[in-house]
Amino acid sequence: MPSNKLEVCFSPKLYEHRLIKRNFIGVVTDIFRATTSICAALDYGISSVIPVAGLEEAREMKARGFLVACERDGKLLDFADIGNSPSDFFRDHLKAQEVVFSTTNGTKAINLVAEESDEVIVGSFLNVKALAHYLERKNENVVILCASWKNLFNLEDTLFAGALADKLLKKGFATECDSAKASVDLWNMAKNDLAGYLRKSSHRNRLNHLLSESDYLMSLTLDKSRVVPVFQNGKLIPFKV
Amino acid sequence: MPSNKLEVCFSPKLYEHRLIKRNFIGVVTDIFRATTSICAALDYGISSVIPVAGLEEAREMKARGFLVACERDGKLLDFADIGNSPSDFFRDHLKAQEVVFSTTNGTKAINLVAEESDEVIVGSFLNVKALAHYLERKNENVVILCASWKNLFNLEDTLFAGALADKLLKKGFATECDSAKASVDLWNMAKNDLAGYLRKSSHRNRLNHLLSESDYLMSLTLDKSRVVPVFQNGKLIPFKV
Repeated sequence: MPSNKLEVCFSPKLYEHRLIKRNFIGVVTDIFRATTSICAALDYGISSVIPVAGLEEAREMKARGFLVACERDGKLLDFADIGNSPSDFFRDHLKAQEVVFSTTNGTKAINLVAEESDEVIVGSFLNVKALAHYLERKNENVVILCASWKNLFNLEDTLFAGALADKLLKKGFATECDSAKASVDLWNMAKNDLAGYLRKSSHRNRLNHLLSESDYLMSLTLDKSRVVPVFQNGKLIPFKV
Repeated sequence: MPSNKLEVCFSPKLYEHRLIKRNFIGVVTDIFRATTSICAALDYGISSVIPVAGLEEAREMKARGFLVACERDGKLLDFADIGNSPSDFFRDHLKAQEVVFSTTNGTKAINLVAEESDEVIVGSFLNVKALAHYLERKNENVVILCASWKNLFNLEDTLFAGALADKLLKKGFATECDSAKASVDLWNMAKNDLAGYLRKSSHRNRLNHLLSESDYLMSLTLDKSRVVPVFQNGKLIPFKV
């Protein structure tokens, strides 16, 4: 049996040029903060997360009675129930609830991948091992899409891609993709001090006012969760491996 | 005086999203093979290189009396005088001649950068030190554009970007660009065995039938040339530093 293939896309703008066009599972990541928050929320016990792209859609969902996670420039919006950081979801009253999550890059990336893939799942450092296990059992090709920042390459999403790619290549996946190779090499360079390495990243600096030190460190914690968020009918639902 | 800024774009598709929009010098690279061949040709004594994108344009230039370097799939085209590999230019009768060079990715990248930059120059491993020296004296912002392969990230152009970025950062350039940081880290990982490292790259494998071992090794030789190819009026002309 030929190996399943693996590809990494560093930006939604490169996604359309990928080599694996069909028959794949897409893994979307946006480490600071959307996909880390979503993984943390589903692991904590939120029943599902509905990703929406814009403020208006978030406001509308609130009017329809949903709990909404929405902030801009680090400030909770007046209509929102909670913010967008991982720790904002650790509240007893949110357990078993459905939450709308406003994330422009993340939602765009999830919808983009949903168009042509067999399935979309969501990844963060919190669930790398769970993702690798899930993908090995699925036995399909894999495309990892970094949601990126304003369509530009970023280090944190790349290192996540490298961490997952490293595991998948060791499980027998094959790649002809230089992005996958580079991300694995960067991961192996950074993994022993991920928080230290990423302090030099541009996004960490941009997010300084948005992301507390404890949320930053939590976002870079490996394998705390066995939950894989799977995108079905517009919702991310938890699948425990 | 504030530092000049440096940015790296891994693909023409990411170029439009760059942070440095104006007032910069663009460095275009396409290591296998266009910009390496152009650097080698101008270093050898070719008087100028006219990059053209398509076969038809190359054929037309031949009909107008130009010497033309043009091949497809590793085969010299019937109307062409020489091929596209670096060593194809090392011929006595080419010295002091103007040569048309057919390169789809390279020409596209050069024209793209020419639109909004103050100047376009061309880079390869052969002239990294010369480029750094030239750019330091120019005292402007710098954007390095990897011509890439079918718009996808590739390792060889990235390592060149890292080699040049490493020198520029040490000369006091500043960067907020994660691509620059990643490329420098990959360069520092690979530099002691560049040829060995790049054997795993997808493009080297794709080019196996096009690029002889001696051309491959020559393409990865550092600082053999003090010539910087500068794009002026549709031609790349040599500037010796």
